[in-house]
Amino acid sequence: MNPSSSFIQETVAAIQPLSQADVHRAQVLWDGLTKPQGSLGRLESLGTQYVAMTKCVPSACPDAMIFTLAGDHGVATEGVSAYPSSVTAQMVLNFLHGGAAINVLARQIGAKVRVVDMGVQEDLGAPAGLRVRKIGWGTHNFCLGPAMSREQAIQSVEEGIRLVREAQGEGIGVIGIGDMGIGNTTASSAITAVMTGQPVPTVTGRGTGLNEAGLTKKIQVITQGLQVNQPRVTDPLDVLSKVGGFEIGGLVGLILGGAAYRLPVVLDGFITGAAILLAHALTPRCLDYVIPSHQSVEQGHRVALDTLRLRPLLDLDLRLGEGTGACLAIGLLQSSLACLTQMATFSSAGVDGALHESPDQV
Amino acid sequence: MNPSSSFIQETVAAIQPLSQADVHRAQVLWDGLTKPQGSLGRLESLGTQYVAMTKCVPSACPDAMIFTLAGDHGVATEGVSAYPSSVTAQMVLNFLHGGAAINVLARQIGAKVRVVDMGVQEDLGAPAGLRVRKIGWGTHNFCLGPAMSREQAIQSVEEGIRLVREAQGEGIGVIGIGDMGIGNTTASSAITAVMTGQPVPTVTGRGTGLNEAGLTKKIQVITQGLQVNQPRVTDPLDVLSKVGGFEIGGLVGLILGGAAYRLPVVLDGFITGAAILLAHALTPRCLDYVIPSHQSVEQGHRVALDTLRLRPLLDLDLRLGEGTGACLAIGLLQSSLACLTQMATFSSAGVDGALHESPDQV
Repeated sequence: MNPSSSFIQETVAAIQPLSQADVHRAQVLWDGLTKPQGSLGRLESLGTQYVAMTKCVPSACPDAMIFTLAGDHGVATEGVSAYPSSVTAQMVLNFLHGGAAINVLARQIGAKVRVVDMGVQEDLGAPAGLRVRKIGWGTHNFCLGPAMSREQAIQSVEEGIRLVREAQGEGIGVIGIGDMGIGNTTASSAITAVMTGQPVPTVTGRGTGLNEAGLTKKIQVITQGLQVNQPRVTDPLDVLSKVGGFEIGGLVGLILGGAAYRLPVVLDGFITGAAILLAHALTPRCLDYVIPSHQSVEQGHRVALDTLRLRPLLDLDLRLGEGTGACLAIGLLQSSLACLTQMATFSSAGVDGALHESPDQV
Repeated sequence: MNPSSSFIQETVAAIQPLSQADVHRAQVLWDGLTKPQGSLGRLESLGTQYVAMTKCVPSACPDAMIFTLAGDHGVATEGVSAYPSSVTAQMVLNFLHGGAAINVLARQIGAKVRVVDMGVQEDLGAPAGLRVRKIGWGTHNFCLGPAMSREQAIQSVEEGIRLVREAQGEGIGVIGIGDMGIGNTTASSAITAVMTGQPVPTVTGRGTGLNEAGLTKKIQVITQGLQVNQPRVTDPLDVLSKVGGFEIGGLVGLILGGAAYRLPVVLDGFITGAAILLAHALTPRCLDYVIPSHQSVEQGHRVALDTLRLRPLLDLDLRLGEGTGACLAIGLLQSSLACLTQMATFSSAGVDGALHESPDQV
C-alpha cells in the first residue's frame, strides 16, 4: 500500500476486524426463532454479517442509499462500447428525473439514490439532486498514456470516503454502490487483468452489447493500454490512475469509507468488482464490510469475485450496473433483518423444539 | 392421466399454452427502456413470462397471496423427522399470530398469507384466519399401507383448485405456494423417487435436521413404503394417495388452478417440487404458469427441478418451506414489473441508442 494521502491512510487504519462475539450473538438470536436451525440459509448469514458489521441488532430495517457514480472514459473514442459517450450525461439526467432502472429498483426497497458526477465529460451544471465532485472532464484515453494523474486518483478515492461520511451523517444504515460511464467495462477489465494476473481476453466481455469485432477491438485496446502504461500491481493507486476511471476511484473510496465507518457496503456488478480488487489491495480488511450482491454476465466479474472468495447472493444474468444488483441484494438484507427482529421465538410461540434423538442436527 | 374427477379434468382441459405474441409484446416493451437490451437478464424474462401468463401488462404490482397448506403425516411416527408432529399444529397457530418466517417475509412484499388446514392431526377448531379444508386427521403411516384413499387424494387436489378460484375472486394477481407438515419431506422424497425414477437415497435429505442415523432410517422407511404400496408412476393420483399428503394434494390443485385461471404460481422448495412433479404428470402444460423460486438444500429438490428443466431464480441454502422462498421470488417479480412499467424509454428520456457499428448486439 502506498496511498500518499493521509486521509486515505487514516481511513484504512480505522477499519476494524469483525468481532466473533457479535457473530455469536446474532447466531444465538437466529437459533431461538421458530424455524429449524439454519433453515433460512444465507438469509441468516447475511443478517449475522450485518450485526457484526454494525455491532448492533437493528430495531427496524436500516435506511438505505444507493450511490450511482458517473464518469466518462477517454478510451471510449477507440470504439470499445456499443453506445456513444453522450449517453453518460444523458443517463445522469435520467437518474435525476427518476426514469432509470436504478430509480425504480431503489423505490422498491425504499432507498434513496445519490447521483454523483465524478467526471462526466459534459458540463451538467448543478441540477437539483446532483452531487458534483468532478475530478476531471472524462479521463484521458489510456491507449496513449495514463487515464488520470496520481493526484486525481487520490482525489477520487478521497471524495468517495467523504460521500460515505456524509451519508452516515444523514442516518443511512447501509449503502449500495453502482456506476454509470460509457467505456467503464474497458477500464474495469484492464484493472481486473492487472490485479488478478489473468490474461486480458479472460476478463473482457461485451459490456453493453459489443459484437464479435467490437470485442476483439476492446481486447486489443486494453492490451495496448497495459503495455503503454505498465501499471504496478503492488500500487493500486498507480493502477487506478493508469487505466481506471474517476467513478471507479470514487467506488474504492465508498468501500474504504463504509468499512471504516461500519456502514455495510453492498457491491453491484463488474465495475464495483474492479473497485473491490483495488480496495482489497489497499487493505484486505475492507472485505469484512462488503456484501457481494450478484454475479454479472461480464466474465471478468466472476474472476474478481473468485479471486477475493466472495460468493454473490444472486445470479440473474444482470449486466446493467447503476447499482441495480445492489438494490436487489439490499431487498434480501431487509428480508433477513425483518426475520431476525420480527419472528416469534420457540418459547414466545409455544412451539416444541427438536426431539432429543437428533443431537447433531445441522 | 387418470383423474376420475370431472372437476380436475375440466381444470386441466382449461389450461392454455402461452402465446408467442404476448411474449413478443413484452420483449418490445423491454427493448424500448433506457438500458442496454437484455441487460436486466432474468428480471426481463420473469416480467415477460408474467405478461404472457396473464395476457396483460399490469399497471401496478399485482396483489400477492401466499398459500401455506398444512397437513400431518402418519409416517412421522417412524421417527423420520427431527421434530414431533405436535409442531405442525403449533406452527399453524404461529402463522395465524403472525410470528413465523412466512408472515414476516410476506409482509416485506405486501402479500397476504392464507393458512389452510388440509389435514392437521389435531382439532384446531376454526380460529380467525384459518381456512379449514380438512381431508383427514393426518395421513396413515405409508409403511403399513396407503397414506390416504384415492377419493381423499382427489378431494385434496380439488380443494386446492377451489382455493385458487377464491383467491382470483379476491383480485389476487400472483400466488406463492408453501407447506407445513412434520414428515412431509419423507412423503416428498417418496413421490420424487417414483416420479423421477431416481433411487431413494438420491432424493432423500435431512429435512428439518436429521442426524446420520435419522437419515438412514428415513431412507429405509421410504423404501419400505414404496415396496408396500407399489405406487404407479403413470397415475399421479395413485402416487399421491399411496405416499403423499393432504397438503401436497392441495399444492397440486393450486398449481393446476393457477394455470387454468392464468394466475402465476410461484413455487417454493422441495415439497412444492414434489407437487409440481405430480401436476406435470397430470398435464405438462401447467409448467408454463409456474415460476420456480429457489433451489432448496434438500437434494431431492434439485432432481425434481432438473427433471422438469425448471431453473430457480435463487440459491440461498433455504430449507424452511412455508412459502418463504416463494416470497423472495415474488419480490423479484415485483422488481421486474416495476421496471417494465415505470422506466423511461429512450425517446421519453432523450437518451441516444446503440451505435450503428454494433448490429449484432445481444
